[in-house]
Amino acid sequence: MSDDSKAQIESTITGFFQDLGAKLDTYAEDQVVIALDLLPRHMNNASQMHGGVMATLMDAAMGLCGTYSPTAEDRQVAITLSMNVNFTSPAVAGQRVRAVARCRSKGHKIFMATCDLLDEQGKLIAFGEGVFKRGALRRELP
Amino acid sequence: MSDDSKAQIESTITGFFQDLGAKLDTYAEDQVVIALDLLPRHMNNASQMHGGVMATLMDAAMGLCGTYSPTAEDRQVAITLSMNVNFTSPAVAGQRVRAVARCRSKGHKIFMATCDLLDEQGKLIAFGEGVFKRGALRRELP
Amino acid sequence: MSDDSKAQIESTITGFFQDLGAKLDTYAEDQVVIALDLLPRHMNNASQMHGGVMATLMDAAMGLCGTYSPTAEDRQVAITLSMNVNFTSPAVAGQRVRAVARCRSKGHKIFMATCDLLDEQGKLIAFGEGVFKRGALRRELP
Amino acid sequence: MSDDSKAQIESTITGFFQDLGAKLDTYAEDQVVIALDLLPRHMNNASQMHGGVMATLMDAAMGLCGTYSPTAEDRQVAITLSMNVNFTSPAVAGQRVRAVARCRSKGHKIFMATCDLLDEQGKLIAFGEGVFKRGALRRELP
Repeated sequence: MSDDSKAQIESTITGFFQDLGAKLDTYAEDQVVIALDLLPRHMNNASQMHGGVMATLMDAAMGLCGTYSPTAEDRQVAITLSMNVNFTSPAVAGQRVRAVARCRSKGHKIFMATCDLLDEQGKLIAFGEGVFKRGALRRELP
Repeated sequence: MSDDSKAQIESTITGFFQDLGAKLDTYAEDQVVIALDLLPRHMNNASQMHGGVMATLMDAAMGLCGTYSPTAEDRQVAITLSMNVNFTSPAVAGQRVRAVARCRSKGHKIFMATCDLLDEQGKLIAFGEGVFKRGALRRELP
Repeated sequence: MSDDSKAQIESTITGFFQDLGAKLDTYAEDQVVIALDLLPRHMNNASQMHGGVMATLMDAAMGLCGTYSPTAEDRQVAITLSMNVNFTSPAVAGQRVRAVARCRSKGHKIFMATCDLLDEQGKLIAFGEGVFKRGALRRELP
Repeated sequence: MSDDSKAQIESTITGFFQDLGAKLDTYAEDQVVIALDLLPRHMNNASQMHGGVMATLMDAAMGLCGTYSPTAEDRQVAITLSMNVNFTSPAVAGQRVRAVARCRSKGHKIFMATCDLLDEQGKLIAFGEGVFKRGALRRELP
């Protein structure tokens, strides 16, 4: 996928994804990667990356990997039915983390995915899995 | 618990909790409630409350309910080991949502909790459960 | 529901449910309870109730509660999409345990449920939640 | 690991594991595989492998992979704290299925693992993840 197409897809992932400062790093049929440069505001009260920020990146990466489309025009949104996350290591501000998602099962409407959250050194911060439903075309939404 | 004590506890929940705009609504031994007034920035690309925002509120509420302490001085932080969330209904900007957490099991170090996320009309938006570990005293952290 | 109707429903829950020795204790619209008298064969290698036996009872109870029908004739089977279980206490052979399931959300095809697993004294052994799909009518299956 | 050592380990996995007919296929530091020849008694009421049987195999494989020891003498039992399973495809009687578990994180007491459940053709039947605690030495238990 060209950088232009990726940028076009990224521009359609509005709202909390952008508010958080997340970036679409890789958008391919077999893998989606979302990156985030950790800022102090992403930390919890122990000054470590908040579990909710982790869940957000993983949810977004898994949702995008199951609704992959080569053109922004045809991208459907993903509706999360269920998500489970296991937390393995802390991450701190200043680090760049990456949520790497892969689709494990694609049905007509339902898809399932797994996601690893890694830091710059490739250390596993969290891993999770989820069940999603394909929804409306993104372009038909406001 | 007096409003003063609750405010003191709330002020020690720093970082992403406050960045999001979350409020500590109820802080009691048997139940913790966190509230959030949904803003456009909390939405996903379908203009509905982002699953990551839901997970954040639920994670925080469950973590606080298993580390309940009547004084901010003695509050320990919670470390999330695992969390599962099921998403039942969308919520939109303008709504006030509440994450209502209850502890289901308290061991020496490990505790487990459930959480319902409700909108103003009491409709169930999501429900989940998690496994947590009690960590350091909050006051010993920066 | 009459004992007769319950027995009729129970007779349609074939296979592993019966192999395990599980019983349909309560079958109502708002709650399904499955009971099991724990035998040595249900234990794990630490002589405590196996987590897989717990998951089996909880899966069955949640599946039945989301496909409730007053007559065996109209009962649909449930297809589990995802299930999460947290384990809180051990249970040992000789005990009677009960999986108490409640439906939390019912859509056109998808439903979500929670389940508590309790021992005879009402102590919580495990709790969990799941996402299910309504499938074929039971009577149309072999 | 020699076949003798594997047989010795397998003989210490008593109870429900053996009642079900499960076999220890591979027992290595980086991977544990449990196999089961599906019989009619392992099916649900739709004549497909019961989700509880799947969960049992996956629970056992993950527990064994995090307590790996080259000798049966030193094997600790695993205590499951939490487990999540996503179900992707049905499996039927006559098939041999394999639960392939890998450890993702090992702490002092807590470990986390993932597991894929595959049929003979390598098709994914289910995948899951869990949080476990290392318990007593198996040889110190009855």
